[in-house]
Amino acid sequence: MLTPVISEIDAYLASVLNARELPEILRGAISYATLYGGKRLRPALVLLACEAVGGDRADALPPAAAIELIHNFSLVHDDLPSMDDDALRRGRPTLHVQAGEAMATLAGDAMVSIAFELIAEASLDADVRSRIVRELASATTAMITGQVHDTVGGFPDGLSDEQRLGAIHRNKTGALLRAACRMGAICGHADEKVLGRLDRYGEAIGVMFQIVDDLLDVTQSTEHLGKAAGKDLSAGKLTWPGVMGIERSKDDVRALQAEARDALAPLGDAAEPLRRLGDHLAVRTR
Amino acid sequence: MLTPVISEIDAYLASVLNARELPEILRGAISYATLYGGKRLRPALVLLACEAVGGDRADALPPAAAIELIHNFSLVHDDLPSMDDDALRRGRPTLHVQAGEAMATLAGDAMVSIAFELIAEASLDADVRSRIVRELASATTAMITGQVHDTVGGFPDGLSDEQRLGAIHRNKTGALLRAACRMGAICGHADEKVLGRLDRYGEAIGVMFQIVDDLLDVTQSTEHLGKAAGKDLSAGKLTWPGVMGIERSKDDVRALQAEARDALAPLGDAAEPLRRLGDHLAVRTR
Repeated sequence: MLTPVISEIDAYLASVLNARELPEILRGAISYATLYGGKRLRPALVLLACEAVGGDRADALPPAAAIELIHNFSLVHDDLPSMDDDALRRGRPTLHVQAGEAMATLAGDAMVSIAFELIAEASLDADVRSRIVRELASATTAMITGQVHDTVGGFPDGLSDEQRLGAIHRNKTGALLRAACRMGAICGHADEKVLGRLDRYGEAIGVMFQIVDDLLDVTQSTEHLGKAAGKDLSAGKLTWPGVMGIERSKDDVRALQAEARDALAPLGDAAEPLRRLGDHLAVRTR
Repeated sequence: MLTPVISEIDAYLASVLNARELPEILRGAISYATLYGGKRLRPALVLLACEAVGGDRADALPPAAAIELIHNFSLVHDDLPSMDDDALRRGRPTLHVQAGEAMATLAGDAMVSIAFELIAEASLDADVRSRIVRELASATTAMITGQVHDTVGGFPDGLSDEQRLGAIHRNKTGALLRAACRMGAICGHADEKVLGRLDRYGEAIGVMFQIVDDLLDVTQSTEHLGKAAGKDLSAGKLTWPGVMGIERSKDDVRALQAEARDALAPLGDAAEPLRRLGDHLAVRTR
């Protein structure tokens, strides 16, 4: 359903990476981690949120590319041997398997700095650029916080499994998906009230996305997912179905889908693509 | 000579890290890598460049803290086993030795995103914030490029040792020192001509700093440096005295010191601290 939007994002990302002055070995590593596959969910949310508030989605391409770079940076670093130690991503060897750990570390780092360059260079009002930097930077910090909790722990004492799980999901996946919606709305010059609508939508689909991901990890095969299935469970990681049970998880998905639709209700037809995307995310199979 | 400026920077960095909402384990790792020691050269340059162009140095504290976080992030990641594999930094165990590789990777990542948060949150004009983000982000990309060349190679064919060395130095150390001067000048609302002066000064001291570093690595003991001395040479890395010889390196330092003074000449007394800092960097012993 996102095909036209994804084509625009893919073309823009490729042109941006080809145009920058970078050592070829670094450009190759970043391209390997960024240009081949991926759902492009975050950049699609930026573009569609911009349109939903009445903006021109072409304006939102630089922040869209930036958030996709940040997302892929996090995958590259999370896959490292010292972190999740994954050898497979999107059905291909992970970057550190392909190009070595040093290169994967450095390429991930460069993806972050290039992301902020893209926003700072964009033809947008200085105020919009600065607000978008703030959204993306704070969501990145939140995402890393989620990964710290997921990998190293470090929770305050006395939290239940449910509370810890909520904190991981909200930060690790939710923060960036929510930021995508906020960034698009800011690009489209949304007022505070409309921005709040996109924020609610982004928060709902963010948590929903991670619950669906956890459910898929329980129920699908490695071949279908393109990454090692059942890995979270076998690693003893907290997952939504693991803590809440599968039926409760499915109920939560339905409630969050309804919350997402409700948040968009006053925005009318302009928000229809976001509405359909939310519905799609609730029932996706990969 | 930088004592009062350094005290301001240290106090500001500590207050910023304490005030942020972060898991304690992550705050501890970032603080370990940031708050104990270090010359604070980059943030001092930001503050002094801001004053040199007639600005208020208090305005420049957030960008100063941001660039120090970026500098320390690069040290944390460069020290990792897959990179330079250093166990000692500023006379203490490196962060990955102290807290593990996963934590060092994640803390380094968070230092970058927090750096951009600090700038985006600062009480500065949106245009100034956005320009500073651009300076810092592109210097960070350049620094990573230098580290790629230094660690993995990837130079275009046909470059001489001298050309490769120049590229490493300009990117790996020079870009961030130059950006520090530019960021301070932008904070102080310098016009293009004055910004150009600070740019020339920053470029000169940036290259000079790395030559002096290479010379110290040849001539000083491990105890004095607080890190393993002679390591560059034994690792077969390109160094300025290794390629140019020690006497030529010393001549280059003197020429760059003069270039730095010349760049500042029209700025008068306001630039005196920067002038003295350049002179100090030419003869520093650690």
